[in-house]
Amino acid sequence: MIRINENFLSMEKNYLFIDIAKRLRAYTDEHPDKPLIRMGIGDVTLPLAPCAVDAMKRAADEMGVKETFRGYEDSGAGYEFLREAVAGYYRQLGTDISPNEIRINDGAKSDCGNITDIFDKDNVVLMTDPVYPVYADSNKMSGRRIIYADSNEENGFAAMPDENIRADIIYLCSPNNPTGSVYTTAQLEKWVDYAIENGAVLIYDSAYEAFITDQQIPRSIYCVRNARRCAIEMCSLSKTAGFTGVRCGYTVIPHELTARASDGSEIRISDLWARRQGSKFNGVSYPVQRAAEAVFTPEGQRQIHENIAYYQRNARLIADTLNRLGISFTGGENSPYIWLKCPDGMDSWEFFDYLLNEIQVVGTPGAGFGKNGNDRFRLTSFNSYENTAEAMERLISLYTKRRNVSGH
Amino acid sequence: MIRINENFLSMEKNYLFIDIAKRLRAYTDEHPDKPLIRMGIGDVTLPLAPCAVDAMKRAADEMGVKETFRGYEDSGAGYEFLREAVAGYYRQLGTDISPNEIRINDGAKSDCGNITDIFDKDNVVLMTDPVYPVYADSNKMSGRRIIYADSNEENGFAAMPDENIRADIIYLCSPNNPTGSVYTTAQLEKWVDYAIENGAVLIYDSAYEAFITDQQIPRSIYCVRNARRCAIEMCSLSKTAGFTGVRCGYTVIPHELTARASDGSEIRISDLWARRQGSKFNGVSYPVQRAAEAVFTPEGQRQIHENIAYYQRNARLIADTLNRLGISFTGGENSPYIWLKCPDGMDSWEFFDYLLNEIQVVGTPGAGFGKNGNDRFRLTSFNSYENTAEAMERLISLYTKRRNVSGH
Repeated sequence: MIRINENFLSMEKNYLFIDIAKRLRAYTDEHPDKPLIRMGIGDVTLPLAPCAVDAMKRAADEMGVKETFRGYEDSGAGYEFLREAVAGYYRQLGTDISPNEIRINDGAKSDCGNITDIFDKDNVVLMTDPVYPVYADSNKMSGRRIIYADSNEENGFAAMPDENIRADIIYLCSPNNPTGSVYTTAQLEKWVDYAIENGAVLIYDSAYEAFITDQQIPRSIYCVRNARRCAIEMCSLSKTAGFTGVRCGYTVIPHELTARASDGSEIRISDLWARRQGSKFNGVSYPVQRAAEAVFTPEGQRQIHENIAYYQRNARLIADTLNRLGISFTGGENSPYIWLKCPDGMDSWEFFDYLLNEIQVVGTPGAGFGKNGNDRFRLTSFNSYENTAEAMERLISLYTKRRNVSGH
Repeated sequence: MIRINENFLSMEKNYLFIDIAKRLRAYTDEHPDKPLIRMGIGDVTLPLAPCAVDAMKRAADEMGVKETFRGYEDSGAGYEFLREAVAGYYRQLGTDISPNEIRINDGAKSDCGNITDIFDKDNVVLMTDPVYPVYADSNKMSGRRIIYADSNEENGFAAMPDENIRADIIYLCSPNNPTGSVYTTAQLEKWVDYAIENGAVLIYDSAYEAFITDQQIPRSIYCVRNARRCAIEMCSLSKTAGFTGVRCGYTVIPHELTARASDGSEIRISDLWARRQGSKFNGVSYPVQRAAEAVFTPEGQRQIHENIAYYQRNARLIADTLNRLGISFTGGENSPYIWLKCPDGMDSWEFFDYLLNEIQVVGTPGAGFGKNGNDRFRLTSFNSYENTAEAMERLISLYTKRRNVSGH
């Protein structure tokens, strides 16, 4: 008789964004005349850069001709041309990564979720609270023990290691989703030291690195000394290059990253991952890989940076508005996310419903990311400038009214 | 201190096809003047159908325009347009599948490998020997107990259930990779009855269904009565439509397929899988989904069936040649694979080296698929007609010579 993996039953029933989608559907069914401004979900809105479109079309044409058709990709790690391009990008970020240390994937989430397949179930997992739900859910599915490090107002929503706690697998995300906070080099050095001391593996999600403008903030964990000995980095073109519908990302596992098996042998983590992916991942569509390659050309970089600048302008507008209203927040700089404190003592779902009902602006309740998000709310800069401006005007007018009513 | 998943260490070091690739590299390095004819790996060689190329290019153009740009796909299960198209295809196969029972993926391998995440580790897994290595490897990685049902000469390389053996998860593949054998409706009914009696889940890989020409052979497990109560079907466009480099497939989990949790509650398997994929899979590129949709149009079906007919002609040529040489085999009909008995008492790796060295024809050693493949060898019909014909001529000439020498 089949037995299911009962770890699934102990998980929250709904994935955060599905939950939100249901509430929105209910609202729009009741109020079809009131269009929503979605400042919540982290999807981009600008179209794909022309260089990526062209590259994908050229590759599609190649697939239609016998002489240039491509079937299975030999290595399954991604085409050399794309891994070379990613390695070149890392050189620009100031760190040396070999193309052989890179595997191309369909975006960071899959690898974030699947990477723990190669580690023993009894490892202790450490992640921040609040946290991107995928880190937690994928570990709950396999029944792993999770410890949370508080990211809160005191530490600027950037948790630091606690020497008294031991962990084997550590998830970090900087620029952070959802808090918009970024780690400095000095802070990341502490995390790397902690990981090496504990013999732990750092899983570093750098999906938002392209939003960093402050040159002092590292855009890769490998810009931090000794990180090659302990860190796996996962990045994606989703936000960097508008690939949320095209789907491409990459994972780096340095050759120095090894672990001891119980028989004392030294095992390369990248070998385990290659073995896992060889059996459980099909690789990325050739035309998609060509589109991704185009993003890393000088012209591609110019095109995507135009888009990133557009979102950064939105982020500044949101930040300016919140400052004007005296609402405290983190992020908005070096990050597409703004993590604000819900005004007037509201909790995050109350604030979600309040904004939805009053001004039809949709954000993401902080509670969806952990207990330290109970009084927080995430806005993103991915909507159009016009919509962002409209949402901010509505927010200003709402709070001006509210404060007048309450006599402030 | 990080501990690795030591199940990986007990697995064979190399994935079969990587192992073969290494031997071939060694041979070609030594004999750069002797080009190989690859009759081994299951990759297609004809270019992508024009309808798929056009659809992908149109979709790429849509992605470059703000009004038609698509980011994240809401459900993650695949776009409605494609799930509708797949459901329409199932109707043509004579069975009713709702679009809501279908999830689009990047090809059958990923889902075949990942599906067991939703089942308890202590389920007993049954698969045939020989078997497509991914079924076995993905279960070995999670430390599951595997029982093998012998597919051998006696049963025409189509193993049948043994009432004395209990299993919880059963993998079947028809048309079979590697043996080319197909299950009849009566045989599949026995498997379905066995699964229902044992409360087991059947994982049915129908990746080669499009090669079935015999109208009596079911092309979907759901053509078999009661299968909706026990079977998950996985299919792929890789071989059907030459998508080995484009990457698209689909998995069907009927709503009736449920399991009892230990608290007695009835759980839909499709819900567990949706939850798993929501956290660990990014969905399929929009232009790829449009290319797949095009395959299911009448014009798309006409185009891909031209290609399939081409490969079928190759399969017939191989079958005719083996018949002429008196070499016994299964497959070649209703299947792109030919599974032959190595002549003259050779084992499968001996035969591999023999063909490689003598006539530079590359096949796949049966031993790579299990012990019942030790004296077997897999040829595929996916090379060009010219190469297939050349390989067959070389085989004829080799065996004519060999028999003359040995006095036959």
